[in-house]
Amino acid sequence: MPHPFQVTARCTTTRARTGRLSLVHGTVETPVFMPVGTLGTVKSLTPEDLTAAGAQIILGNTYHLYLRPGCDVIDRFSGLHRFMNWDGPILTDSGGFQVFSLARLTRITEAGASFQSHIDGSRHLLTPEKSIEIQISLDSDVIMCLDQCIAYPAERAAALAALEITTQWAGRCRKTWREQSGEKNALFGIVQGGMYDDLRRMSAEALTAMDFSGYALGGLSVGEPNQMMYDVAEAALPLLPGDRPKYIMGVGTPEDLVELTARGADMFDCVMPTRNARNGQLFTRRGTLNIANSRHRTDTAPVDSECVCYTCRNYSRAYLRHLYQSRELLAYRLNTLHNLHYYLDLTARMRSAIAEGRFEAFRKRFYADREPGGAA
Amino acid sequence: MPHPFQVTARCTTTRARTGRLSLVHGTVETPVFMPVGTLGTVKSLTPEDLTAAGAQIILGNTYHLYLRPGCDVIDRFSGLHRFMNWDGPILTDSGGFQVFSLARLTRITEAGASFQSHIDGSRHLLTPEKSIEIQISLDSDVIMCLDQCIAYPAERAAALAALEITTQWAGRCRKTWREQSGEKNALFGIVQGGMYDDLRRMSAEALTAMDFSGYALGGLSVGEPNQMMYDVAEAALPLLPGDRPKYIMGVGTPEDLVELTARGADMFDCVMPTRNARNGQLFTRRGTLNIANSRHRTDTAPVDSECVCYTCRNYSRAYLRHLYQSRELLAYRLNTLHNLHYYLDLTARMRSAIAEGRFEAFRKRFYADREPGGAA
Repeated sequence: MPHPFQVTARCTTTRARTGRLSLVHGTVETPVFMPVGTLGTVKSLTPEDLTAAGAQIILGNTYHLYLRPGCDVIDRFSGLHRFMNWDGPILTDSGGFQVFSLARLTRITEAGASFQSHIDGSRHLLTPEKSIEIQISLDSDVIMCLDQCIAYPAERAAALAALEITTQWAGRCRKTWREQSGEKNALFGIVQGGMYDDLRRMSAEALTAMDFSGYALGGLSVGEPNQMMYDVAEAALPLLPGDRPKYIMGVGTPEDLVELTARGADMFDCVMPTRNARNGQLFTRRGTLNIANSRHRTDTAPVDSECVCYTCRNYSRAYLRHLYQSRELLAYRLNTLHNLHYYLDLTARMRSAIAEGRFEAFRKRFYADREPGGAA
Repeated sequence: MPHPFQVTARCTTTRARTGRLSLVHGTVETPVFMPVGTLGTVKSLTPEDLTAAGAQIILGNTYHLYLRPGCDVIDRFSGLHRFMNWDGPILTDSGGFQVFSLARLTRITEAGASFQSHIDGSRHLLTPEKSIEIQISLDSDVIMCLDQCIAYPAERAAALAALEITTQWAGRCRKTWREQSGEKNALFGIVQGGMYDDLRRMSAEALTAMDFSGYALGGLSVGEPNQMMYDVAEAALPLLPGDRPKYIMGVGTPEDLVELTARGADMFDCVMPTRNARNGQLFTRRGTLNIANSRHRTDTAPVDSECVCYTCRNYSRAYLRHLYQSRELLAYRLNTLHNLHYYLDLTARMRSAIAEGRFEAFRKRFYADREPGGAA
């Protein structure tokens, strides 16, 4: 099992840390935010845009790519990198979350997840073996084990059953990865257990015993209160090996990234910066701004005067509002560039703060700046 | 009246010619194709994309920008250039064509065009004076006179009446331009007259007598047969002063550009490359390609192996088809980049061919290559 992670600095007052993750297609400095490129494209952006915004690694979705365009298409390109023209690292999820959230008539058995495509209603069976095979064919730098995600709230019995299936599947994923991957790409296990600390512990211990390149917390940000997510992460993260990267899946707001970094998380992914951009919600150091607001109609200032992204260097709020109100395609691209830059810059600033021993000061300043109503 | 045009080469067997148009924001080599940036954005592209694709000048729409975002917004930026971050030349149309094609309940009187907004139904009166004032406030490099466009087919009496109003308005436009513009930006007159050669002659003579920086043929490509458009242009273009740029508005296909250049036209604009891109129709030297076609599903080749645009250098037909079928935003951008590059490269190749005395050979080769079915 490749162990590509190295801790490079630690905060003395929190569990925050920096690290370096060496993957087949490049090196990733952590804490890291991974833009989501569901269908082999981070919506509206080219790979050059992603690099300019500071992206180190992006995420692809196994469920989506398997259904469309289909693995036979991507095989012609020997994987996702050449297909989409991104030569940096890629992490792929296992499909478990989409089967839970997007597919229809899903039935989970020990064999795997049987589901109906959200596109054409065709039936499919996603087994742990098949999920890994697909991810290998995508040539993913970080392959995720298939897991069973549950809704919030969930009964303890349901959380336990999902955890046990996830553990069993993790073993089968590991076996398939060993037999078929050439063992060069990293494989991460996913901790489940709902909001039950003892179940999270049981899951973490079982996965740690199997030995993975890294570990993720799955099943968070599924509707639970924020503080509960922080508490579950705070309890579960220290149970994972300190020399492995710790990834919190599907999270979150800027505040979530800061809080979970303080609790020892290294990796994040979320559709929030890209999706909110397409809805006109722009993140800034001073708070979140709704570009549709009529107060921006004649405003010649950029979204954030402190921001150095392409959008803020070249365009005004008035122009962005005009594009957005007119449903112009360029609106989505310029907004997405800004929001991703914000997220990627936030993690870069956290890395510097941790490395320079001033993470607590950074965190205080972050909240002082983000006070509600600060940005309009 | 600024006369910013200089003929730089002539074809010996056709009326094709090259020229140089010196405008406030830069110099334009003709024949030139002007990408259409209706609402202050060439749909899906940044100014940097336009420059990389070879754009020298873009077109903005007075009618659209007047309604949205409104002139008071653009005034805050001292014109359209800074608002949209494009520092090259801009030509604006007068609003006449949109009043004819897009607005509702339009009533034309000598005073001007009274119409109802296609957005919110509000009523407006666009006079020749107002059209010029708006274009001056946009700081357009080439201002167009307000004209009355008519449908095809049109009775001779209707064509004559529209021509007479257009001539009268041209005089008022010229007066407003002289009084309010500082006379630095160019002003073009628009020849009307429907498909009647004698009316086109009457219009051309009246406008030539007034003296404009350049002349356009309006009211073409409104549904008439292609050959009729070529015939009207062939008869009308020589009636315009040889030392002024000649612009055919709203045209056209690649074939139209070649044929009308051969008849002496210098400038073109059309939504075809950008709109067709968004519908998956891609232009190539070998013909037009429908990217949605299932034959491209696993095709690792670029759209056009001879093309050096960003899209063809980096992406396959299979990837473009996948993006298009998935309605991904990047599809529109990559397709638009390719189509605009095709149009801009076509005019660049015509310029070289004319300058090097081989336009007739170029034209033959162009048709041989574009044979139907060549590209799939």
